[in-house]
Parts: sequence; structure tokens; C-alpha cells
Amino acid sequence: MFFHRQELQFKSTPDQPDAVYARKLQEVLGGQYGEITVAMQYMFQGWNMHTPGKYRDLVFGIASEEIGHVEMLATMIAQLLEKAPLGITGDAVQADPTVAAVIGGTDVQHAIVAGAGARPVDSMGNPWQGGFITASGNLLADFQANANGEMQGRLQAARLYHMTDDKGVRDLLSFLIARDTMHQNMWLAAAAELQEEGAENLPVPSNFPQSKEHGAVSYQYLNFSDGPRAADGRWASEPTPDGKGEFSYHEGPTTSAPMPPPTHPDSRFYGTTELPNVVEKIAGRAQDLLNTE
Amino acid sequence: MFFHRQELQFKSTPDQPDAVYARKLQEVLGGQYGEITVAMQYMFQGWNMHTPGKYRDLVFGIASEEIGHVEMLATMIAQLLEKAPLGITGDAVQADPTVAAVIGGTDVQHAIVAGAGARPVDSMGNPWQGGFITASGNLLADFQANANGEMQGRLQAARLYHMTDDKGVRDLLSFLIARDTMHQNMWLAAAAELQEEGAENLPVPSNFPQSKEHGAVSYQYLNFSDGPRAADGRWASEPTPDGKGEFSYHEGPTTSAPMPPPTHPDSRFYGTTELPNVVEKIAGRAQDLLNTE
Amino acid sequence: MFFHRQELQFKSTPDQPDAVYARKLQEVLGGQYGEITVAMQYMFQGWNMHTPGKYRDLVFGIASEEIGHVEMLATMIAQLLEKAPLGITGDAVQADPTVAAVIGGTDVQHAIVAGAGARPVDSMGNPWQGGFITASGNLLADFQANANGEMQGRLQAARLYHMTDDKGVRDLLSFLIARDTMHQNMWLAAAAELQEEGAENLPVPSNFPQSKEHGAVSYQYLNFSDGPRAADGRWASEPTPDGKGEFSYHEGPTTSAPMPPPTHPDSRFYGTTELPNVVEKIAGRAQDLLNTE
Amino acid sequence: MFFHRQELQFKSTPDQPDAVYARKLQEVLGGQYGEITVAMQYMFQGWNMHTPGKYRDLVFGIASEEIGHVEMLATMIAQLLEKAPLGITGDAVQADPTVAAVIGGTDVQHAIVAGAGARPVDSMGNPWQGGFITASGNLLADFQANANGEMQGRLQAARLYHMTDDKGVRDLLSFLIARDTMHQNMWLAAAAELQEEGAENLPVPSNFPQSKEHGAVSYQYLNFSDGPRAADGRWASEPTPDGKGEFSYHEGPTTSAPMPPPTHPDSRFYGTTELPNVVEKIAGRAQDLLNTE
Amino acid sequence: MFFHRQELQFKSTPDQPDAVYARKLQEVLGGQYGEITVAMQYMFQGWNMHTPGKYRDLVFGIASEEIGHVEMLATMIAQLLEKAPLGITGDAVQADPTVAAVIGGTDVQHAIVAGAGARPVDSMGNPWQGGFITASGNLLADFQANANGEMQGRLQAARLYHMTDDKGVRDLLSFLIARDTMHQNMWLAAAAELQEEGAENLPVPSNFPQSKEHGAVSYQYLNFSDGPRAADGRWASEPTPDGKGEFSYHEGPTTSAPMPPPTHPDSRFYGTTELPNVVEKIAGRAQDLLNTE
Amino acid sequence: MFFHRQELQFKSTPDQPDAVYARKLQEVLGGQYGEITVAMQYMFQGWNMHTPGKYRDLVFGIASEEIGHVEMLATMIAQLLEKAPLGITGDAVQADPTVAAVIGGTDVQHAIVAGAGARPVDSMGNPWQGGFITASGNLLADFQANANGEMQGRLQAARLYHMTDDKGVRDLLSFLIARDTMHQNMWLAAAAELQEEGAENLPVPSNFPQSKEHGAVSYQYLNFSDGPRAADGRWASEPTPDGKGEFSYHEGPTTSAPMPPPTHPDSRFYGTTELPNVVEKIAGRAQDLLNTE
Repeated sequence: MFFHRQELQFKSTPDQPDAVYARKLQEVLGGQYGEITVAMQYMFQGWNMHTPGKYRDLVFGIASEEIGHVEMLATMIAQLLEKAPLGITGDAVQADPTVAAVIGGTDVQHAIVAGAGARPVDSMGNPWQGGFITASGNLLADFQANANGEMQGRLQAARLYHMTDDKGVRDLLSFLIARDTMHQNMWLAAAAELQEEGAENLPVPSNFPQSKEHGAVSYQYLNFSDGPRAADGRWASEPTPDGKGEFSYHEGPTTSAPMPPPTHPDSRFYGTTELPNVVEKIAGRAQDLLNTE
Repeated sequence: MFFHRQELQFKSTPDQPDAVYARKLQEVLGGQYGEITVAMQYMFQGWNMHTPGKYRDLVFGIASEEIGHVEMLATMIAQLLEKAPLGITGDAVQADPTVAAVIGGTDVQHAIVAGAGARPVDSMGNPWQGGFITASGNLLADFQANANGEMQGRLQAARLYHMTDDKGVRDLLSFLIARDTMHQNMWLAAAAELQEEGAENLPVPSNFPQSKEHGAVSYQYLNFSDGPRAADGRWASEPTPDGKGEFSYHEGPTTSAPMPPPTHPDSRFYGTTELPNVVEKIAGRAQDLLNTE
Repeated sequence: MFFHRQELQFKSTPDQPDAVYARKLQEVLGGQYGEITVAMQYMFQGWNMHTPGKYRDLVFGIASEEIGHVEMLATMIAQLLEKAPLGITGDAVQADPTVAAVIGGTDVQHAIVAGAGARPVDSMGNPWQGGFITASGNLLADFQANANGEMQGRLQAARLYHMTDDKGVRDLLSFLIARDTMHQNMWLAAAAELQEEGAENLPVPSNFPQSKEHGAVSYQYLNFSDGPRAADGRWASEPTPDGKGEFSYHEGPTTSAPMPPPTHPDSRFYGTTELPNVVEKIAGRAQDLLNTE
Repeated sequence: MFFHRQELQFKSTPDQPDAVYARKLQEVLGGQYGEITVAMQYMFQGWNMHTPGKYRDLVFGIASEEIGHVEMLATMIAQLLEKAPLGITGDAVQADPTVAAVIGGTDVQHAIVAGAGARPVDSMGNPWQGGFITASGNLLADFQANANGEMQGRLQAARLYHMTDDKGVRDLLSFLIARDTMHQNMWLAAAAELQEEGAENLPVPSNFPQSKEHGAVSYQYLNFSDGPRAADGRWASEPTPDGKGEFSYHEGPTTSAPMPPPTHPDSRFYGTTELPNVVEKIAGRAQDLLNTE
Repeated sequence: MFFHRQELQFKSTPDQPDAVYARKLQEVLGGQYGEITVAMQYMFQGWNMHTPGKYRDLVFGIASEEIGHVEMLATMIAQLLEKAPLGITGDAVQADPTVAAVIGGTDVQHAIVAGAGARPVDSMGNPWQGGFITASGNLLADFQANANGEMQGRLQAARLYHMTDDKGVRDLLSFLIARDTMHQNMWLAAAAELQEEGAENLPVPSNFPQSKEHGAVSYQYLNFSDGPRAADGRWASEPTPDGKGEFSYHEGPTTSAPMPPPTHPDSRFYGTTELPNVVEKIAGRAQDLLNTE
Repeated sequence: MFFHRQELQFKSTPDQPDAVYARKLQEVLGGQYGEITVAMQYMFQGWNMHTPGKYRDLVFGIASEEIGHVEMLATMIAQLLEKAPLGITGDAVQADPTVAAVIGGTDVQHAIVAGAGARPVDSMGNPWQGGFITASGNLLADFQANANGEMQGRLQAARLYHMTDDKGVRDLLSFLIARDTMHQNMWLAAAAELQEEGAENLPVPSNFPQSKEHGAVSYQYLNFSDGPRAADGRWASEPTPDGKGEFSYHEGPTTSAPMPPPTHPDSRFYGTTELPNVVEKIAGRAQDLLNTE
């Protein structure tokens, strides 16, 4: 169960409205790596988790904080929109290019659909979608996804920090960036703990028997581009991070197979087949039809 | 530029057709973490990269291999579909539940739309979409995303391995799983190399000045759920992975702020406002209208 | 069957072109509550309806009018776009910020994709989609959805009215707003008639036996936030609109249950399980593998 | 801020696993009218609200409950999936049509992507999306949307009730259905209260000056289909629900206008124009080209 | 304006219900090339057309017919669903695999969402979307798109014809297939007429001055795969269909250029740059920060 | 297999950055008819093809070239974005409308998400999606789709040509336009060759037995709009392009059928039925309930 307290985790008020910036801020609210994504991702990881205890407590503990971050961003956006102009176009644009420019930079659905309110969309107006989250049941894979989410999120927030000089907005971003610092560290620590405890290991999933994989290519770097410097990385010649092999470097594939012959599905799918077969095809077609009578 | 060779990297032929399994295999072709995703992700990372040399050669080298994996899966799927039944329903279903069951398990667009061919969709028929990829320009963040992609991908391939006993399909999967082993290791090695060389560090992005973040909460675990065992993890009391702090544990938030007062946008957005203000609202409305004459 | 007459229901010509406004007008053409939505919604309600007679005649009668509204908006948009600038950027932007501002405010696909024509998208360029409509087969629920559609639609049209001072555009909007007035009233009247005739009642669906619902909580207001004033509404203490109960007010839930223990699916899904079980897990894994040989 | 308690509002455990039903239950979790939709819808209404007090407390109070309903459904789905078969196809299908049938009825991403866990998608696997919610800033319109959401939701839950005979699942549904009963009544009561207090009225938005709408058609039923019985409804001849007019009935439109002449955008959009103009078009094209040198 | 007549263009009643087939039929109602697509496509082409007269009359004439086809399919689907089972799973599946198989093959939203009615989705449940249509303003391009739409549509209908032996369904399909025959011929005739009249020609758009294209490669077949037989086609050595050139065949590209050097955007985007530049990067970063104080 | 060469097919460097134009150029990279679409479309046609030889070599040969076009556009876009402003809004907008205008015209995700890099989206920011491609297995239909794709693509590139005066960008476009000229001609030639060889014919699919279509309407023009001039086209009275019939012209439908009676699904779907039946409905409902005990 979830309970709401009518308070925010941090002050979220801009010094002044800025409808253009409100649109940009939507990215970290409703974008691929916005707060809705991490909130939902951690919740679904919790609901699907196969183990009670510290890892489940961890994902639930942070999931709830993240809904609160959605809330801080939504209230910030509503305030940034408070003086959103109606945006009369036509002659007005001729008269005042600045007003026109502002209109051009806004999410026009903020005005038309939400009446100057926040929306569950990204900075280009694409709706948030369930396809953004990751909750696989394998904690090592998922904590990797979580660390990535917090890295992309902090990166976007850092970029947004430089796109405004509003003190109030920057204060909120400095808070969110700090929490992203925490959460990056936290998921990396949790991933390390899983491995130390022997619960999961590399490669993920670690208990798929490696005898069943085609081991000859498990640690080969195969270069399918002609850039030669890929051979200089540690992925070309050193022991592998999973501690189970050594990288080797190869120009192009070390295996190959001929393309299989084309398929010939039922002729009633009306696909085009080999020309030499056209006559047989017609005959086959006739036979099919007899059969379907 | 890309060049195609009419050969596959590995043999991709099933022992026998299986239209139900063909649909499942779509997940690792066109799903969130399928081969189209990694191919596109690495290509866009290459095109957007700000540095020549080994990292760019790396992403191009692997990107091209991954398009070849798309190809192997697509040709495998077409072969699995080769004997796809037309799937006559009606009386036939009554007569043969096995046929009916098969129909129920297939992607019916395989038959109706593609004439027994592969499609750029996932195992539930959702089209692949650009929103699945990550290419931020920051290599440490993106290599984390890549490692996650290969982990989720290997996990799904391992699950799919157990969902068939077709030797030909399992051979292909054992090859793809081995390459995922390589690619997981490779991206983790590349992420490590970036940090050793001092090009990037934690937290991402490492050159955003930490003095600008709200440092008080940068290493605090804040527990917003009532599960007590989150305090037992190393994210609650040990040095942080970025080497810059020490985790501390707190029940709930360490900061708070009152919710800001509601906003009052232009009355011509027709939002509902406070009831005591109804009279003024009507007056304001009247004034607005006079202004718009 | 549908027949087209090359006439419009109302004059739809702007006084002057305005490519920025054309983009905004897309919202009521192709947005969540645009005319395509209501046209499609009423048509599908008609095709799925289980009763002949006045209700079916009603939805067909209005559905056809709404396609005509799509037409009026599309022709209006095409005219607003008639002088759409090519929008040369580069030096031109430096030279004339007004031109640049206009470009910024437009739907650039209007120019690039449609050659200055209308498109089936909303004001942020998201394509119209079937997921916007509601046609459940239950008329009381659906007439409620219809009334909502007309309310949101009239609200958006009213906002758009204030975003232009073009007389021709305002004339069209004043016509559409009037029809929305009619349609709001009409669906509310139809919903009332359904209830008077006893065909449907509250709560929807009214013939699901209420004995089968967990009646103890059917009329309880449960407050999961800490705002105390929710207790002041008529939803906290008065007879309920369905005439079958009386509202009561409660702080938080009146029921609760422990979270069920975590699930343990087949180990071949490679989910992470409890740590104490790791040994057993490996053993189980071994057993599974033996079984799959 | 949101706080999580590791308890459920109601017992959510099936008597036995049922992977096919798990997929169906996704509809009320992640569908157009599922619990994610109402949770998000009420939250955004709260964040965008222009008035403090009982209405804001109301939406926050219920929003938080609804996230808890998402949680109950997600944990139920995970349990229904606990014995989800790996679903080996091929020979197995031939051998056991029942197993095959089960596979056909499941969401295969439950197994492949989530490792037997719940997902933020509907019963056909479409991801939940932000485009499902409504939060316009106008409370009368939005409470109408909320009532509709609860009606469609209760209708779907009632249908799902009959699709299983599992006692545990039915218990949960009977609880959710009861809460939907409450929430339908509650939003209708809140909508009524808004009107009694004079905060909002019909038609929505009530303070758009009706003098600005094309009043002649504001209460006319215009029949664009040939079904005559639409004239029998109270929407054809009685006083209107907004108390401001009287319905009248008309066969077809009472207004019309000629279609405006076709538009002629800049010739560099390469649209096809009138044939008699081909010569001029070529000349114009030449002129344009001269201009662009 | 559009007017509806409560009659169908052709009899649309199945001999018996078949919920599995109902789902398949959704493809030609709401799929990429379903009837909604062609109806919408022709309407938007009409509304955006720059010429009055026969071509506009043509697109409007057919657009309206196509909405009627949507209607025939929707009513057919509703009838196919009339006896749709509730689909009780659990023990029932064990008892009767045939029932289970049927459930597996259905669109479960037909039952849960639409109460046994048609929906604006394709056969895998993806919603119809505006991104499916084409209306560019250039009639030759668009008639080509239309011919393609009718070809894909007829192909799918032909496949569907073989997936049922229901006489009523086959009758409807034989009617729709006949109309697709007409419409394929019609659009090809219209495309030919445009060229004969000199209104448009190949290549589209024909009045873009070919002097401005890089003419050296305008008629070269460049082979980027290693299949040698592409040299055997008439696209390798004969006069081109536009009558303006002659095809020539080349192994691989005839032009090439070095990849441009990597870009170096503002350092505040935090992209990773060349390693030798790390020192300068930090210095630059410091300078940026001074500038932003 | 695919191999990458770190070279471009043509020089792709702008004379100067232009972030607004970068966004427009996304259309031909990631839009409905952008280069990703044609690359993917031709690849899937190749993988699904039922015939070896020249047609398969053809689609693979061009598919690979098209990925290289994606690459040229992506590198061009990255360079156009190189000086993308951070876009500080707030006071800055007031001070410099030109800067503001530029911001308004950009894809803000270019900056926030990709750090000044290209993305797999169209010019309005909608992600590329698998639903854009066509690969049906029938080559005549698909080559028609391909010709359409190249026509729409060349049309969009021609429009984009006029939207910039940057010499470098225009050079790239003149190259791409020339390749589109080639590809239009090529697909039309290939379609002609298919017909000459007798592999496929009109109408598509040509081997569906025309005796099974409702031949009476196969060549009738049925006018559902009131524009009389559709009778003037060659589609109204001449021999049909498939050489099998002669067009005839008819005002409206030549066939009709009454609408089928409404359906009556299981009452537990809770649809609304005829009012005279309400009593029976309740009785039926009671019976159902007895049955479900």
C-alpha cells in the first residue's frame, strides 16, 4: 500500500515562470529515463521479486521516493507554466517575435490539453510508455539496468541544469542530481553485493550452464568494421571481467555458414517463388484449389 | 558504408518447422532488447561519438555483427514458419484441438501480413521502435546501457533455449548466447578502461561539478518503504563505489518542503479555481473578455 | 453505407493563413479528444450495439456528423497552411527572427510530409490511434465516455478560440463549440433516459449482482493522503448517487492483508532467489538439466 | 511524498496458478482503463489543480489507493504465473494439446521478458501509455472522465469475474468491484457538488460566454443517418440538462457552406495542381528557380 | 459532409460464430493496410488536394465507399463474436483443450474491453494509427501509395479467404477482393492518366529540376551485396522507365568520401571526447563554469 | 553478414551548423519514408523471399546501400548540431528572440537526450517503428510498395532541398535525390520484369482464382460522393490495366443488403440490450447466475 503526504521532499518552486523550460523539464518527468520510468521499474522489480529481504526492501524503498520525484517535477512544471501565454498567433506574431518565439518552444498541449499543467510525456510530447521499463526477475541484470537508468537520468539533469539560470529550478535539479549520485552508487553496490554473496555472477544469467554455449566464440572480439584501433582495447587481449576467459582479437567472423535455401510456404500465401517453378506453381495452385473444394 | 555477404555467421536452420516457437523467437529479434535494438544502439553511438579511435572502432565493429544476428534470426524464423498452417478455424477447431492450439500460439500476422516471414516486432506483436535505444554521447553511461542490453538479451536467449528441444534452434541460440557472453564482458571491460584512462568516472557525468549538487543527500539511503532489511546492504553503511563518500541509512526523507500553493493560470484556460474566488473569477472573466474584444 | 456530399456543414475559411495556428488546431482534429476520436467512437458503438432503435440511430446519426467535422477542420488547416513558408533556416534565421519564430511553432511535417496539408495527428505530432476510443457494449458507461469526450473537446475548442483573433477561424470554432454544447447535453440526456427506462442503472454494470461484491467497502471513502478536507465533501457522509448506500469517511484503509510470500517460478527462468537457497538452487538447477537432457 | 507499507489492502492470492488468466488480468492493471491509468490520472489532476482544499485532497487520497491496487494486481499476476510452464513447443505440442493450448493463451513476454512476472501492459501486450490519462484543469470535465474510468473499469472487472472460478481471484475482484462502486458514486457526487457550489456548470467549460457560440445550433439534434427512431429520445424534444435550452429535431444539417476552393501552396512543395494550369505551373516553377539562385 | 444509410453494401453475416477468425479479420479492418487506412488515406488526400475536378471527385468517391467497408467488417466481426465464450480458465482448460485452444486464439480484448464487439486494432491487437496513411499532396506519388495499399489489402484478404470455410465470411471476402481488383486497376489507371496529361511524370516529383541532382549516379545500379545475379535484371542495363536514361551496373559504390571528423559540441553536454584532450577538456570545463557563474 | 567500412558513399558535411535544420532532416532519416524504413524493408523482403537469384540479390544489394544512407544522414545531423546552443531560456529569451526562435525550432531531445547527436526519430520526434515497413512475400505488391517509398522519399528530400541554402547539405541531398531517381526507376523496372516473366500479374495476387471473387463489381466505378467529374477519368470507361475487363461508371452502390440484426452475446458481458427484453434479460441473468453457482 502507498500513502501520500502533502509535502515535497525538496523545495520545487521556480523564481519565475518559463513555459519553454517547462517543456524541456518534461524529459526527466516522462521521458525514456524520466522519473516515471524509474518509479515504475523499481515497483515492478519489487512485485516480481523471488526473494524477500534486503533486495526487495531496497527496490520498494527507492520506488516510493521516485514517485515523489515525479511529484516534485510535476508541481515545478505547473508553476513554470503559470504565466504561459495563450499564444495568440497571426498578427501578434508579426508584432512581437519574442512572444512568437516562446510559443514555438513550448509544448502546445500544456496549454490546449492540460490548461497549463504537467503531462506524462517527454520533452517532444511522446507519451510515457510501459515499454521503457525493465524488470526481468534476474537481479544482477536489473541492477545493471537501474544503474544505467540513474546514469542517463543524471546526465540529462546535468544538461538541463545548464539550460536555465533560474535559481529555483537549479536548486531542484541540484537535489535530483545528488539523489542520482546516490542511486548510481547504490545500484552498483547492490550489484557488487549480489556477486560477493554468490547469488548471481557474470555472465548473466550465471547459472545457465556454459557448457551449453558455443564456447569457441565466447571471448573472441570479431571486428566487422575496418577500424583497426579496436584491437588496442582491453577487450582484445586481456582476461575477461567474468574471470573465466581471455579476450582474443579477430578480423571479421571466425565462423560462417551458407545462407539456407529460400523457404516455400503453402502456395495459398501467394508469395512469389522461383521463376523456373512457375509452371509447377500453377499446377500446385490448381491442386490446392481442388483440395479446398 | 555497409556491405552484405550472402553468408551467415552461423548455421541457422531448425530441424523442423514450429510456428509457435517462431513467434517466441521474435522477442530477441524485434523486442526491447532484441538484436535490432543493439544493432541500432551501437550504430547511433558510433555516428554521434565525439572521439575517433578505439571506442568508435569498437561500436562500429560490433554494430555490424549485430545486423548479421538480426539476419540469422530472421532466416531462422522464416524457416520455422515454412509449414505454418493456414489455420482454418470453425469446424476444424472442433475436430483437431492440436491444430487449434498451434494457431492460438502463433503471431497471426506472420501468416496474414508476411506470408510466413519474419517481422520487425516482438513476441507479442508490438513493432520495434526507436524509443528502445540509448545513445547519449557519454560513453560511460552508454557502455553501461550496452552491458545491460547484452545481459537482458542473454537472459532472454537462455529462457528461449529451454522452450524448445529443436537441435537446430538450440545450436543457433548457443551461438548467440556465447556472443552475448563476449559482449557483456566486452562492454564491462570498455567501461573499466574509460575509467582507468581517466576519460570518465563515477558518478556519470563525472565532470559535472559536484559542488553544484545538493551534497548533503548524495550518499544517503532514504527508506520510503517499511521494510527494515534495506539497512543490511552495503548501500547503507560502506564506502561508495565512486570512492567519494560513505553511505548512510535514514528512515524516510531527511529533507522536506511544503507543497507550493496551487497555480492560477490565465482564466481563459477555464481551469477550476478556489470556490471563494468564484465571484472574482467571474469578474476577471468579464474583464478578460472586454480585453479580447 | 456512407455517402459524401461536397459541401461543408459550416463555412471553414480563415481570414488569413497562419501555419502556427494550423498546428494547434490539429489537437481537435487528431488528438485524444479530437473529432476523429468521437467519429470513430460513435461508429464502433453503433456497430457493436446489441439493440436496434433509438440508441443505435442516435450514435449513427452523430457519428456521421463528426466525420464532417473532421472534414471542416482538415480543410481549415489546409487553408491556414496555404502560405506556409518553406522555412529556410541558416542565415535567414539570423536575418529575420519573426520568420524563424514561425518555423519554430509549426508542425514541420505539415510541410515536409504533407506539402502544406492536414494530417491525422495531434498538436504535438503524435499520430491518432485506436487506443483513444471507447466502445464497451454497455451504453450507460459509453454515454458517460461520450459526455466526457464532448466536455474535453469543448474545453479545448474554447481554449483555442482565445489563441487566435482570426475571424474565420473563430466562426468555425463558435460553430463547433455550439455543437459540443448540444452533444454534451444529448449524451447526458441519453444516459438519463437509459436509467429512467430501467435499461441500465448505477453502479455500472448494474446487473452484476451486488451480493458478489465485497459490500463492506462499497461506500467507504478511504483517505490515503493526509489532506483532511476530503472529509468535507458530500462523498464522505451523504446518500450515494446510486441510491443504494450512504458514504462514510475513514482515515486510510479499513482492510489489510500481509504481502504474499515471493513466488518461485521454474529455475530455468533464471530469476534470483533467496540467498539461503543458493545451494539448493544449484542442486535444483542440476536436476532440471538432467531432466532436459 | 509517497510512503510504502509492505502490506496489501486486501488478500491477493489465487487458489492455484493460471497463466492464461494472468494475461487477461493485465487488462485491469495496464490497459486503457486499468489501475495504472486511474492512479496516474488522479495524481496529475492533483498536481495540476488550481484550488487547494477538498477536491485536491480527494484526488490525492484516491490516487494513492489506486497505486496500491496496481500492487495487488501485480502480486496476483506473479502468483498466477508461478507455475507457468516453459512452454516447450515442437513435439510436445503434438503430444499434449492442453499444454499447447495454455501456451497459446498466455502473454509470452510474461515468461521470456519478465521471468514469470507482471508487466505494465494490457491483455494484448500493448504497453501502458501516457495518452490514456485525462487531466485538463477543469474539474467538472475531469470528474466526468473519472466516473467514466471507474465505470469502464468495473465493467471489465465484472467480465473478468466470470472468466475464472478461482476463489482467490474472485475475492480480489469482488473487492476491486466494490471499490469501483464507491469510486463511481464518489466522482458523480463530486461532480454534483461542483455544480451546486456554482464552481462549474454545464456545458463545460461553463464560463466560456455562450454569446460567442453559434447559438442557433446549440440545442439542435441533426440526424446524419437514416434511422428515424433517434427522434424518439428525450434529446429530440425536451428541455436540455444544462437548463438553458430545449432540444429540437432535424433531418440532416440546418446549415451548409460550399467547400472552399483548393489551396495552392508554394510550388516548391511539388503538389499536383489543376491541369489547365500546367503551363503556368511550369512557368511559375521556372520563376521560383530563378528566385532561388 | 457525410451521410449514413442503415444498409450495407453487401451481405455480411457468417454462417456461424468463430471468435478466433474474428481476431484474424481485424487485420483488414484496423491493420496497416486495413480499411480504416484506405478510408482515411483517401479522405486526407481529398482534403489536401490542390486541384478540383476528376481526381478530387475520385478520392472522395472511393473514400466514402471504404468507410462502408469498415462497417461491413465491423458488423461481421461482431457476429463472429456473438457466441464468444467467456473463456473460463483453470480447471476448465484441463477438461476441454478445445475450449482452451479457442481462447488462446482470440483477441481477449474483444471480450474484456468490447463485450464481444469489433475494435480499431489489427490482428495482433495493435491500435490503428495515423502513421499508416500517406497523403503528400503529390498525386502521382500518392496514387502509387494507393495502388500499393489495394495490392497489400487484396493479398491479405486472399490469405484470409483460405483460413475459413464459412460460406458467409467467404462471400464477404469475395466481394471485398473484387473491389480491391477494381481499386488496384483504378489507381494504376489514374496514375497513367496523370502522366498522359503531363500533370506529373517520373521521377516523382517530376518538376524538381534534374540539373540539381547528382546526375552521375541517377541511373547506376550499385551492388552492395555479393549476389551476382542482380546484374541480370533489366534494372542493370536497359533504358529506364522514366525514359530519361539507361541503367548501368556497378559492383559497390562509384563514389566515396572519408568520414568527417567527430563533432565536439559544447562541453556542458558532457559527451566523451578524445583522450589526449582530457586535460584541455577539464580546462575548458573550468572555463565554461566560470562563464556560467 | 554485414561489414562496415569507415567511409561514406558521399561527402556529408554542412558548411555551417544549423540545429533547426538538423531536426527537419530527421524526417528522411527516421520518418515513415526515411532511410531506416527502406533499409529495413528491403532487408526483411530479402530474408523472407521464396526465390533465390536476381530479385533476392537486388533487395540485398540495395538494402545495404540504404544503411549507408542512414549513416550519411546521421553524421550530417551530428555536424549540423555541433554548435547547438544549450538554449538557456528565461531572461535570455527576452533578450534575444533569435536565439529563442532557434530553440523553438529544434528537437530538444537532440540536446537533452543525445548530447547533440542524431536519433532514430522523425522530424516531430516520433520514434521510428517497425509498423512502417512492408514485406509481404509477394514481390509485385512489395516492389509497388518500394517504388512508393522511393517516390515519397524523393519528394520529401526535394522539399528539404529548398528549406536550406547550405551548400554542403544541398550537395548531400542532390546525391540522395539522384539515388532516389535510380531506385524509383529500378523498382518499376523490376515490377515490369516480374510481369513479363509471368511470375506475377495484375491484380495482385494474380493467382488467386478470379472465379472466386464477386466478379460483377470487379471493374465498376461506384461513386459514393456527389462530385460528377469522376466519370471523366479513364477509370470510368476504358479497358482496365490488368487487361481483363472494362471499367464502368455507377452513381453509388450497385448492391446492397440490410444491416444484420444486432448481436446478443452472453449476458455476462453486461452489454445493453433491447428495452422490451429487459425483463427477459433479468430472468436470463438470474439463470446464468444459477448456472455459475
